[in-house]
Amino acid sequence: SRSLNLAVIPGDGIGQEVVAEGLKVLSAVLPQDVKLETKEYDFGARRYHATGETLTDADLEALQQHDAILLGAIGDPSVPSGVLERGFLLKLRFAFDHHVNLRPSKLLPGVATPLAGQPEIDFVVVREGTEGPYTGNGGTIRKGTPHEVATEVSVNTAYGVERVVRDAFARAQARPRKKLTLVHKNNVLTFAGHLWTDIFNKVAEEYPEVTTEYIHVDAATIFLVTQPERFDVIVTDNLFGDIITDLAAAVSGGIGVAASGNINPSGDFPSMFEPVHGSAPDIAGQGKADPTATVLSVALLLRHLGYEAEAARIEEAVAADLGERGGLPARSTAQIGDALAGRVAG
Amino acid sequence: SRSLNLAVIPGDGIGQEVVAEGLKVLSAVLPQDVKLETKEYDFGARRYHATGETLTDADLEALQQHDAILLGAIGDPSVPSGVLERGFLLKLRFAFDHHVNLRPSKLLPGVATPLAGQPEIDFVVVREGTEGPYTGNGGTIRKGTPHEVATEVSVNTAYGVERVVRDAFARAQARPRKKLTLVHKNNVLTFAGHLWTDIFNKVAEEYPEVTTEYIHVDAATIFLVTQPERFDVIVTDNLFGDIITDLAAAVSGGIGVAASGNINPSGDFPSMFEPVHGSAPDIAGQGKADPTATVLSVALLLRHLGYEAEAARIEEAVAADLGERGGLPARSTAQIGDALAGRVAG
Ligand SMILES: CC(C)[C@H](C(=O)O)[C@@H](O)C(=O)O
Ligand SMILES: CC(C)[C@H](C(=O)O)[C@@H](O)C(=O)O
Repeated sequence: SRSLNLAVIPGDGIGQEVVAEGLKVLSAVLPQDVKLETKEYDFGARRYHATGETLTDADLEALQQHDAILLGAIGDPSVPSGVLERGFLLKLRFAFDHHVNLRPSKLLPGVATPLAGQPEIDFVVVREGTEGPYTGNGGTIRKGTPHEVATEVSVNTAYGVERVVRDAFARAQARPRKKLTLVHKNNVLTFAGHLWTDIFNKVAEEYPEVTTEYIHVDAATIFLVTQPERFDVIVTDNLFGDIITDLAAAVSGGIGVAASGNINPSGDFPSMFEPVHGSAPDIAGQGKADPTATVLSVALLLRHLGYEAEAARIEEAVAADLGERGGLPARSTAQIGDALAGRVAG
Repeated sequence: SRSLNLAVIPGDGIGQEVVAEGLKVLSAVLPQDVKLETKEYDFGARRYHATGETLTDADLEALQQHDAILLGAIGDPSVPSGVLERGFLLKLRFAFDHHVNLRPSKLLPGVATPLAGQPEIDFVVVREGTEGPYTGNGGTIRKGTPHEVATEVSVNTAYGVERVVRDAFARAQARPRKKLTLVHKNNVLTFAGHLWTDIFNKVAEEYPEVTTEYIHVDAATIFLVTQPERFDVIVTDNLFGDIITDLAAAVSGGIGVAASGNINPSGDFPSMFEPVHGSAPDIAGQGKADPTATVLSVALLLRHLGYEAEAARIEEAVAADLGERGGLPARSTAQIGDALAGRVAG
């Protein structure tokens, strides 16, 4: 019999609530013969205040024993900006070499978008997850004086760029439209830009069926609101990916439904799945959070572990649920979770 | 009698066409007693191919003699990416210390936006223009090999950040809503982020009437499409400003109407005014380009030089013209220029 050994990190704010619903749906969708084991880990603001710890070596070792990680949200206004982001979220992505940060955007029928005319949106962003301006390289001199200088170094390696570009080409090849867009700013960030562009063009030769294009990140934000249908797969750098996936989430139904996977395709370390949204402390504990993004992250998790049919069942359930929402009275976090669990159990 | 001694850089592609209309409107709006002198400069792809030059020391000396610079667009697919951007546009911004990159966004009545529900949009982005990831710091080792490493260094100084933050506070103070938003990514880019945040908070103490807020750049892209009315003045770093002003242009009428000023408030060097759009080689020479963004850039130029009434007349003419466009047959570049010149001559 099979088993799924999951690390669960509810985290801060609404993280607790949405993860509970994600697990509800996971239990409902898993085949009978799969033994689901979950272990909950305490990370985030509470633990930081209690112990000063964000993510220790022992934590990493424990997490490493799992098949995958499900994360709710990390972050609280009581913790200085950057402490949990660098000390937990990014530390984990870097430690487990999560170089493929996968963020699908699909505008489902019946879902509200801020864009006029209900455009067709169905693309996936492959965001690099371990390099670029996220490496924490840089520093400050003469801090707090009128002569302070602060630097941030974007580090880009052929090794790091090529593996994520290859992953994106393979994903584009597997989709009906077979189109891949490189988003960068190679006219200004010429060092990193040339590296990305050269590798992109080189790998493209191995994928003659994939249509390729290059778009500057500034222009990409325009197309995301004026012609989102032009995108199929996008591959981009860590920071540009951070920015355009929030915009992509906004135009394709809001961050209430945006899922993501921090994936290490080698399997050397467990991959982590999390909603794109944050901990939303303003609505935490009120049963108001939409668990859909977490539930869709569970679908990504299942697909990553080979449970394709179950992943698809969750996505169909979400599409059906969202399609029926319009006009209905607002439901609680648990009510949405129950509805989705009911559908996938079907 | 007064004089206005203008350097004119039509540049590439549609630059030629839109600048001609900008000058038409400028001539029409200027008071009789102002002697307008213009000198045209040849920069861009043609000159680069002919001479290998993008912007020489002698060019800079010549440009420096003018009161201001009007630029159409620079860039052509025949020139490798980065050559004209770094060799001309950025070189000029850096040489003339254009640290205030001013980009207003106003959705005028009757103008189409990709957003549903015709939201109220009226804000201005103060983008830092001489620092950040635009400095060209960085480099490449082992180029073209599997071991290539390319870096880009974002350089941020207290001097550079404080002057642009001060400029933004002064602008916010002068507007009815008196609100200033700092956009950065201080939870990840902690070195630069702390510098920006600390200086922002320090200068805020001198402007008790200005309401302040901080938003991460990724979240800012969400608000730009879901709640653009929340913004009044935004101050941000060079790269974040590049990205969010293209998005801002897209939601507030398109880059056909987005104007910008590369301003050196000290007056030590001439400031440069240019449409946000590029050279659009695909439609160049066909009389299809909308000169409105250039005409609005002329208004920013006039305001910078103290011609407030004339700047306002141009902006009113553009608002009136755009308000009447809906349903009208498409007009040529020159027809739009003629219409605007006619209105401001009034
Ligand atoms: C919280 C922050 C560190 C994170 C990021 O910038 O990657 C978030 O914005 C995201 O997109 O997952
Ligand atoms: C062409 C390019 C160098 C420029 C920039 O990145 O600043 C442009 O995108 C702009 O916004 O003016």
